[in-house]
Amino acid sequence: MFLRNCWYVAALDRELIDGRLLRRKILGDNIVMYRGESGLVVALADRCCHRGAPLSMGRLEGDCLRCMYHGLKFDPTGKCIQIPGQDLLPPRMKVRSYPILARDQFVWIWMGDPALADPELIVDFPPLRDPAWKGIPAYLHYDANYLLIVDNLSDLSHLAFVHTHTLGGSEEYAYHSKPPALERLERGYRIERWHRDADAPPYHRRVIPNKADKVDRRNRVEMRIPGAFLMETMFSPAGSGATSGLENGVRQYRNCQFMTPESERTTHFFWSYLNDFEGADPTISHSLLAALIEGFMEDKALIEAQQRELDDDPQLEMLAIHADAPLVHFRRTLEKLIEAERAHDERAA
Amino acid sequence: MFLRNCWYVAALDRELIDGRLLRRKILGDNIVMYRGESGLVVALADRCCHRGAPLSMGRLEGDCLRCMYHGLKFDPTGKCIQIPGQDLLPPRMKVRSYPILARDQFVWIWMGDPALADPELIVDFPPLRDPAWKGIPAYLHYDANYLLIVDNLSDLSHLAFVHTHTLGGSEEYAYHSKPPALERLERGYRIERWHRDADAPPYHRRVIPNKADKVDRRNRVEMRIPGAFLMETMFSPAGSGATSGLENGVRQYRNCQFMTPESERTTHFFWSYLNDFEGADPTISHSLLAALIEGFMEDKALIEAQQRELDDDPQLEMLAIHADAPLVHFRRTLEKLIEAERAHDERAA
Amino acid sequence: MFLRNCWYVAALDRELIDGRLLRRKILGDNIVMYRGESGLVVALADRCCHRGAPLSMGRLEGDCLRCMYHGLKFDPTGKCIQIPGQDLLPPRMKVRSYPILARDQFVWIWMGDPALADPELIVDFPPLRDPAWKGIPAYLHYDANYLLIVDNLSDLSHLAFVHTHTLGGSEEYAYHSKPPALERLERGYRIERWHRDADAPPYHRRVIPNKADKVDRRNRVEMRIPGAFLMETMFSPAGSGATSGLENGVRQYRNCQFMTPESERTTHFFWSYLNDFEGADPTISHSLLAALIEGFMEDKALIEAQQRELDDDPQLEMLAIHADAPLVHFRRTLEKLIEAERAHDERAA
Repeated sequence: MFLRNCWYVAALDRELIDGRLLRRKILGDNIVMYRGESGLVVALADRCCHRGAPLSMGRLEGDCLRCMYHGLKFDPTGKCIQIPGQDLLPPRMKVRSYPILARDQFVWIWMGDPALADPELIVDFPPLRDPAWKGIPAYLHYDANYLLIVDNLSDLSHLAFVHTHTLGGSEEYAYHSKPPALERLERGYRIERWHRDADAPPYHRRVIPNKADKVDRRNRVEMRIPGAFLMETMFSPAGSGATSGLENGVRQYRNCQFMTPESERTTHFFWSYLNDFEGADPTISHSLLAALIEGFMEDKALIEAQQRELDDDPQLEMLAIHADAPLVHFRRTLEKLIEAERAHDERAA
Repeated sequence: MFLRNCWYVAALDRELIDGRLLRRKILGDNIVMYRGESGLVVALADRCCHRGAPLSMGRLEGDCLRCMYHGLKFDPTGKCIQIPGQDLLPPRMKVRSYPILARDQFVWIWMGDPALADPELIVDFPPLRDPAWKGIPAYLHYDANYLLIVDNLSDLSHLAFVHTHTLGGSEEYAYHSKPPALERLERGYRIERWHRDADAPPYHRRVIPNKADKVDRRNRVEMRIPGAFLMETMFSPAGSGATSGLENGVRQYRNCQFMTPESERTTHFFWSYLNDFEGADPTISHSLLAALIEGFMEDKALIEAQQRELDDDPQLEMLAIHADAPLVHFRRTLEKLIEAERAHDERAA
Repeated sequence: MFLRNCWYVAALDRELIDGRLLRRKILGDNIVMYRGESGLVVALADRCCHRGAPLSMGRLEGDCLRCMYHGLKFDPTGKCIQIPGQDLLPPRMKVRSYPILARDQFVWIWMGDPALADPELIVDFPPLRDPAWKGIPAYLHYDANYLLIVDNLSDLSHLAFVHTHTLGGSEEYAYHSKPPALERLERGYRIERWHRDADAPPYHRRVIPNKADKVDRRNRVEMRIPGAFLMETMFSPAGSGATSGLENGVRQYRNCQFMTPESERTTHFFWSYLNDFEGADPTISHSLLAALIEGFMEDKALIEAQQRELDDDPQLEMLAIHADAPLVHFRRTLEKLIEAERAHDERAA
């Protein structure tokens, strides 16, 4: 079960170029997405209402899409506007269309009741449109339920063990960087975690001068339902007390990661990792992109192994430790929202 | 559910050469087929009644088949006639045998009650044995239910969109070649479709002189239960009024295609595409074979995509257009026959 | 359903070297096995009790194992002895441990109630620890239920047909080497089978002088629940009456094969084929290892084909012949033991 009345990232903006018909399964629905000639972004059920052929095997015509099996043509609302060899166009000849919007390098889709699709509800992450912040948005596919990725991001102590030699830096992180009290939100949570007087982690060391100097590291995390992870990361010279200012030796990152369920056991994972210090040197963004992929592949190996354990035993009982408080809050909150949505749909039916 | 009391194509005749033991699943049954030393064609359940080993891993001995696990030997009726190390041959030691007949380049099998297996019911397609008609029979495997292929063949307007650059020729075919009234048959249907004053389609242009001349094209289709498609195709100089005679510039094809269910979601597809004008030039048959494979691969991509949509949503609702009248008639007729067969079997049980 | 209160071979002893964390599924349970620094052999459920990550992706620390997701550390009994960032260690934080013992080149595991795991119940095969007997233990994976392999070994007449050109020698074996009456045991059976005045089978001919001489061959088989096959094989000069003594031209083999269910349709297969005559020539063991693998691959092709037939039709009825008496006894005895175990567990629950 998924929460449907919310926005999910459906694609990177740059995936919809050159008239591409992008087929992607989201929350179990097969969807075709495209940017029409007018610039309009469209999402339709990727299944002709006539014989079920995928519309993504069809042809873009202006802002419309023609099924290339028997030639039925659909407008951006999903209405069939031409049937070759037939004059009558029955109103029921239509496919489902989904609210969809391109914003700040990502494309967002609303999987529930279109009447509720308020663009104001799209997660706003200002660094994505701020020229001071540079980064390269990217995509990975996971053979795992999206909540296993949310879990992973909800306890940064995994940096110590999974990412020791990449994003983490040392196992000390798990022992010496306790998070302050969790801030529970109505639709998510916030955490701040300091690790003081530590070696800079390998991914950061690659892009800074004075690689051997000790640093203070601060991670501020916000996780939002249904699966948006926003993080501010700051490194400053150990003990300097500085929390901003390139001139103080502070280096910052902004990081957004979006988990979109493909199915109950697979996930689309989108992210952008942004820095404020590369100036005119794009190699820093490329170094960070490569470093993040390296780190995510470590997560992916573990998380997909977890998923296989769940496949083997769907009743698998997990025992919580103290550090699980954020993920427990997140999962409970989400379950209640899904339950409320289901109850509402049943009353409406 | 399949119709069982009818003949299906099980193999190309040329597949049963050199003592080959051909294992093929048909209507969900694993079957081993072979031509014995006497020339007799045999079909047995491909599963030893002793421990279930496939007989197709066994050894042909005359017209008999020996299981090469423990050496049990079966005659062409499926009766066990030898058990090494044991003198007693219990009558229940036998495997199912299926009525099977080679005829006109194809091998036909009866999957239902053997007592009803009347060879007169085998689809007769005279061009297959007429030396005036030349062609090369061939086989393709589909990851799709066989009725999706029947559907495909039941609306030739798909030639316009799927096969524009191969078997079709132009999208005009869908707009300007309306079929006359459908002729509904007790076990199938007939359709005739003209397309006048058109460019010859690419596959035909390759094998004729005067490639640029406009042609009139006539397709006469007959579809028969459970899945036999027979088509006569004629091209004549546009407006000439000629419907026969090489000397009038008329070129004709005869085309039979046979869909045999392997399982609910896979199909054996057999065909032969015959021409009456190649004379002593066998390159024409080879050109047509290659052209048909090219066209069928276009169908296969679409039809297998349809099947995947059905896999995703077995309740997928398809909405009919006018051009679906033939396939609707065919599917309804077949359903009634299957239902009658099932009711009969239940009464008998 | 499997018998759980018994010992199964879990690994070759040599698989647990160099600190390897060996993940293997046994009777449907994912297990991690390792030899700790003290030499202790340990088997734990391969699933961290915290978030389900495989412990085999973790790190060996002395005789303990650390999960490399969030750093939980487990001792050889499965108890969690460290949670980074948390002082309290709740007693319920533990994973299942399994009784496990290395003995005579194999590692044995007890899958049922640990209180019943009596090492005296491990199958004892003295040639494995007798320096007079030389061999190379080995492993194969089967895509088939383990009882299909037991069946295979329960009727040596299959040597005649499956292994004619490898382990068997001729089809005569099936016709002329009838076994004497089966000796039924409480937990298995014994059979003795003579084949007199025969050509030596190919695998044996490769490692003896006088390859053309006729031999008398005696196989003494013992099969024990849940799946241990022990065989003594003797070849002597035909008609000599000798049953021992290298000086009499007698050559002997000792052969143990252990079938351990991985799942209902897959099996771990371990064996060692030992000879008493290689002296200082290790090429004989290598020749025999290669010969056995060659023969087992013939079995594997057939047995996995049987399994696929069972996959297709789980209700597949098998009809017994006289030679099936041993396997019928074995399967019935095993079923009763499984039934008794299940009844006992239900009473206890």
